[in-house]
Amino acid sequence: MSVQVSSQQLQEFLDFAVEVAKKAGEMIKDGFSKKKNVETKQSNADLVTETDQAVEKWVIGYINERYPSHKFIGEETTDGDVPCDFTDDLTWIVDPIDGTTNFVHSIPEVSYSMGLTANKEVIVGVVYIPVLDLMYTSMKGHGSYCNGRKLAVSSVEDLKQSIVIHEGGSSRVPAVVDTKMKNIHSIVNHSHGIRAYGSAAINFCRVADGQGEAYVEYGIHCWDFAAGMLIAEEAGAYVMDPDGGPCDLMKRRVLVACGEKVARELSAILTHLDMGRD
Amino acid sequence: MSVQVSSQQLQEFLDFAVEVAKKAGEMIKDGFSKKKNVETKQSNADLVTETDQAVEKWVIGYINERYPSHKFIGEETTDGDVPCDFTDDLTWIVDPIDGTTNFVHSIPEVSYSMGLTANKEVIVGVVYIPVLDLMYTSMKGHGSYCNGRKLAVSSVEDLKQSIVIHEGGSSRVPAVVDTKMKNIHSIVNHSHGIRAYGSAAINFCRVADGQGEAYVEYGIHCWDFAAGMLIAEEAGAYVMDPDGGPCDLMKRRVLVACGEKVARELSAILTHLDMGRD
Repeated sequence: MSVQVSSQQLQEFLDFAVEVAKKAGEMIKDGFSKKKNVETKQSNADLVTETDQAVEKWVIGYINERYPSHKFIGEETTDGDVPCDFTDDLTWIVDPIDGTTNFVHSIPEVSYSMGLTANKEVIVGVVYIPVLDLMYTSMKGHGSYCNGRKLAVSSVEDLKQSIVIHEGGSSRVPAVVDTKMKNIHSIVNHSHGIRAYGSAAINFCRVADGQGEAYVEYGIHCWDFAAGMLIAEEAGAYVMDPDGGPCDLMKRRVLVACGEKVARELSAILTHLDMGRD
Repeated sequence: MSVQVSSQQLQEFLDFAVEVAKKAGEMIKDGFSKKKNVETKQSNADLVTETDQAVEKWVIGYINERYPSHKFIGEETTDGDVPCDFTDDLTWIVDPIDGTTNFVHSIPEVSYSMGLTANKEVIVGVVYIPVLDLMYTSMKGHGSYCNGRKLAVSSVEDLKQSIVIHEGGSSRVPAVVDTKMKNIHSIVNHSHGIRAYGSAAINFCRVADGQGEAYVEYGIHCWDFAAGMLIAEEAGAYVMDPDGGPCDLMKRRVLVACGEKVARELSAILTHLDMGRD
């Protein structure tokens, strides 16, 4: 039986997400200005800090208190060896710090990302950049906003006239890195150039705000893009699997562009990596 | 005979540069929110707009009025086929818009960059990001600041623990692009990762502010980095030619890092491109 969400509930969930993002943002901002205790995960470049863990722990408790029936998927409490328990139920998908490497290096493009799914579809998305005080919000069917300003994607129609965001990610597996290098080379030869900012959630917000035309990443996780994906779509972006099929939140890869034409032109010049599933 | 500049004159020149940057910033901000008329220069990715040209024209007139004896080197009035007339005289080196591609794509990381040299050494540097209202300032021997806040580089000591900014630039000459791709690959394998923001002047300011550890670019021009270089050095950064020799403002390549060790580790893993001279 599918979950029904009224307009009133949708607004309530968005208000809740904004409230959580502001409080999480305070914790992130506090940690940002201090010396960080950093641990590595799967590679020298795959980092986690005590702030990531503290924020997620607090968020889980806060959601449980307000919505005990809701489910939760978060970066720091997910076991990489077990598939995510992703169902039709109302599910909060959270990245306590998207851009942990930026956080570690005192680069301000660091965000708290929180999406809500119903029937496996994102219906609320919030991305908050506390150091810059930028709050990106969206509800399914209601557009997307940054600090209340309505967002709209770029009107560019050709990949050749586009800026493409491409993130290398933290994998240092040679075959993965080699393919990404090939893709970077291909993008450079077919566009105005490449940008890399180090935060998936913020990359979606940039495309949503018309700051560049497209973004592609292989190796991303659902918590990196659940919220950002809705923010981009509600600003008019086209989101798909990099190989051209429908986007799958659990498939660990995504391509977003200001329109379908740019998306398909970008897809056509890439070598598609299979990164497994969340 | 070498040029002598008193402390009082140095402060006067900085105040003047800040005044010019604010006015230029208004013109840039005004152009940023409008539809841009874009022309290409040496490649599909080498762009110029009427705002670049209008800002430079206005700046030349304003400098001539105040300091008729000073010389001027600027992006839009330099003939690429003739070497810059770079002497010991007081010389303003100006990029009216550093990050023109960002400007065209409504990406806010766009700056006005203005450095003053005496005896071929930068003694004043100002980089202003009008859309974000960030004013970076420096005087030789007096530190560097962002909106009055003193800047200091990162304390990281190993390339392996560093974030490196690398810009691909606008050249689409296959041999140049190939070498840059090789360098990107090498950086990824020896660091925490790569960032690319699309503005040389801002990249120096990021390193100066401890937002990442290093930045390297081949194909840069003197107007892209005269001001940023001083801002970084005065925040404690080590600036050199990518091959390890002393930095040469006219040599179209530069490497900056939070310290000499990171700089030399980065230099050692790169293939050094000769990009000619300004």
